[in-house]
Amino acid sequence: MSAPITALPPSLESALSQMLGPVGMLVDASDTAPYTRDWRLLYEGRCAAVLRPADTGELARIVALCAEHDVPIVPQGGNTSMVGGATPDASGRAVVVCTSRMNRIREIDPHDLTMVVEAGVTLKAAQDAARNAGLMLPLSISSEGSAQIGGVIATNAGGNNTVRYGNARELMVGLEAVMPDGSVFNGLRRLRKDNTGYALRQLLAGSEGTLGIISTVILQLQPQPRSRELALCAIADASAALTLFGAFRAQDPSAIQAFEYMSGVGMALVTDLIDGATLPLSEPAAAYVLVELASARADDSIRTLMESVLGDALENGLVIDAVMAESESQVASLWRLREEHAEAQKRAGANVKNDVSVPVSRVPALIERATAACEALIPGIRVAPFGHLGDGNIHFNLVQPEGMDPAAFLARDHDIMDCVCAIVHDLDGSFSAEHGVGQLKTYMMPEWRGGAELETMRRIKQAIDPRGIMNPGKIFPAAAS
Amino acid sequence: MSAPITALPPSLESALSQMLGPVGMLVDASDTAPYTRDWRLLYEGRCAAVLRPADTGELARIVALCAEHDVPIVPQGGNTSMVGGATPDASGRAVVVCTSRMNRIREIDPHDLTMVVEAGVTLKAAQDAARNAGLMLPLSISSEGSAQIGGVIATNAGGNNTVRYGNARELMVGLEAVMPDGSVFNGLRRLRKDNTGYALRQLLAGSEGTLGIISTVILQLQPQPRSRELALCAIADASAALTLFGAFRAQDPSAIQAFEYMSGVGMALVTDLIDGATLPLSEPAAAYVLVELASARADDSIRTLMESVLGDALENGLVIDAVMAESESQVASLWRLREEHAEAQKRAGANVKNDVSVPVSRVPALIERATAACEALIPGIRVAPFGHLGDGNIHFNLVQPEGMDPAAFLARDHDIMDCVCAIVHDLDGSFSAEHGVGQLKTYMMPEWRGGAELETMRRIKQAIDPRGIMNPGKIFPAAAS
Repeated sequence: MSAPITALPPSLESALSQMLGPVGMLVDASDTAPYTRDWRLLYEGRCAAVLRPADTGELARIVALCAEHDVPIVPQGGNTSMVGGATPDASGRAVVVCTSRMNRIREIDPHDLTMVVEAGVTLKAAQDAARNAGLMLPLSISSEGSAQIGGVIATNAGGNNTVRYGNARELMVGLEAVMPDGSVFNGLRRLRKDNTGYALRQLLAGSEGTLGIISTVILQLQPQPRSRELALCAIADASAALTLFGAFRAQDPSAIQAFEYMSGVGMALVTDLIDGATLPLSEPAAAYVLVELASARADDSIRTLMESVLGDALENGLVIDAVMAESESQVASLWRLREEHAEAQKRAGANVKNDVSVPVSRVPALIERATAACEALIPGIRVAPFGHLGDGNIHFNLVQPEGMDPAAFLARDHDIMDCVCAIVHDLDGSFSAEHGVGQLKTYMMPEWRGGAELETMRRIKQAIDPRGIMNPGKIFPAAAS
Repeated sequence: MSAPITALPPSLESALSQMLGPVGMLVDASDTAPYTRDWRLLYEGRCAAVLRPADTGELARIVALCAEHDVPIVPQGGNTSMVGGATPDASGRAVVVCTSRMNRIREIDPHDLTMVVEAGVTLKAAQDAARNAGLMLPLSISSEGSAQIGGVIATNAGGNNTVRYGNARELMVGLEAVMPDGSVFNGLRRLRKDNTGYALRQLLAGSEGTLGIISTVILQLQPQPRSRELALCAIADASAALTLFGAFRAQDPSAIQAFEYMSGVGMALVTDLIDGATLPLSEPAAAYVLVELASARADDSIRTLMESVLGDALENGLVIDAVMAESESQVASLWRLREEHAEAQKRAGANVKNDVSVPVSRVPALIERATAACEALIPGIRVAPFGHLGDGNIHFNLVQPEGMDPAAFLARDHDIMDCVCAIVHDLDGSFSAEHGVGQLKTYMMPEWRGGAELETMRRIKQAIDPRGIMNPGKIFPAAAS
């Protein structure tokens, strides 16, 4: 990786450096290095420069100049992609365009419950600003401290509250983006209804930077919940978890703020390997559910709802044991048991991660079949699925057997992924629920999204980005883009 | 309109008639006439044949054959477009492809709360089937008895419950469509999270038949509300209505099932001209709000919520008078006052309709400014706006002055629409909230959605339908499509 950085065409380099100055343009390898590898260290590329525009005007001029010179652009926000979606390839031809300086929260409107934020605002900063205005941005993902809103929308992030409020795409009511020719699509309208042509905002959301760079968005906010209850339940298996989800949903789907599944294997890793993480139940179980109910109303019967459903479930044996949080610190402790799953798995050795989804009703079949298949594939493998059961979205993660060489385990990563994905395919699911395709999963597109679907995507890509300069190598398998 | 029907190319005609038989293919002018005019009688076209496929396979073969012969296709469902979106042009070259025979409800899944319906199922039939399964399809529009699901999704219909559940696009979790080359895009996945490439489902929803023909959809259902309250309030003006909406929303936005505004002028037309429609309040007011609250829970404090917000509003003078429905028949009577607005206006003479939206906070400005402008434009004009205040979507309808010649009034339709739309534009609104563009409003696209937005739409259209055979003349002004 010590090869010299490929120079930009001189006229482009001088135009860019004149516009952006030293703060806005990084060219030294030591400065650009952090932008050329993903945080999982799956990919390490190179780039000709990192460009950091201060506003939409600069961003548009950057794109127009790069288009003129046929220089590829890799858009990057907080660089938190799970699939190498924001990492340049090894050619060194591309520029990385990072939105981190476009970080103003322009407006919070308490009447329309909307928030206008630039692409480089972190999700956490946007959440905090909403909270300080007495409102809530109901989008929560584990990378929220670093992930930037532009990337969050460009990858249609999901997370814990999708079960109640939808994915990032559904929370976005307005969007501005710089298109691959440098023109600006201004869709910054805060309208609940607007049937005037194609759904370009929705198309750009989730396009992973391959159709343009999102520069500003308008997000839909909600009032802060005034009542909230959180419970951890010990259960026998995923089938019991699904039945419990159905019991809550039959009462009131709009009260379910989060419904998370955790395996007994995963929970044991958390309590064994994370300082201060303890199970507040009498004994360990084969599986767990963390359920959060909430309402905007202070006088709402959320507590009664939780107690009544859990009471019935305990009585008929569906739930083995349960604990409700009685303070903010207990809320934090219970959520921590869920949030530390990834860290605990990392400490337990090498991991293979699958971010898959199936119809909600088929989650038990997924967990049962994929667990058996993985255990048969690699004896001693630790199967630790967890995640958003209420969305049918399970992070089907596998931890190496104790004592196995990590490299030997990781050498089987495609075997493991194929083993899980074959079952997901059979259950009419998706190989990527929240994380997107990036470069890690492009090879899966022809089999899973082939025929008219992939052909239509290719046509859209070709029509909007005929030069193929926007985030090349992402989403589409190499033949096309 | 008595010119002979333009013949299809003979090889195409014989292939189609062999496949479809007499039930599936209409060619006599008397049979095809109802399919060649819109119900508002704004447009009367001609067609070479009406094709009525029985299933997706037949639909796909029809499209492939038409593509081969460069024969334009006008998709049609219940023919309830407000904007001539399903009417062929006068050339007689096109075939109308009507989905009415594809009318099976294939499955209702009580575990995933989803429903698989073919394009030709009416919205009413889908609602009824959901209700019979103990569930609710939360989409309600005035044409629901005729409108078919394919068209409902293709035009991204809105209606009374959008304030709570979103537009048709948000209620659709899976979609199958026949693309302009006859290939079938199978996006019939019932997944809450699926980030594997571009949002083609969302793009096809709202594309008004210009990118393909929707053949089957999967809809998201909800449990039926177990508690529900409806109130009619007399208020001073739209500003008071907005304040009242804010008061309910501050308590609990998810309880607001509908929030409808009506003008005093419009209500007076209803009570004067509709048999049995009476105002259940002590005296007429300048404006009214119909608010419906609901919850999935039987034990929920919906009644308390309604009484507490209305009690405060009556006390501080925000609401002048109010009545709550105490029986199902009272619910029907109150909703009838709202639903008969269009019919009453029709009986009062010639109408000009504007389906516009603005940010919710700007509805009072819209109503105040557009009322004054229209009254200045045509003295004696009856300004009768009504609609979905909670979505910022007002049907800004104008009724001719009493005694004026209807034709003379209608001759001013563009003056009136321009007068209203100039104010909508100034308030950052949309010229079409729910009804789409069709052929009626194509001329507005360059000014309202020009630049990068319209250019991107054109590129997508060209890429997906390079022959321009899918619903030509819709959405795009003539120069392009």
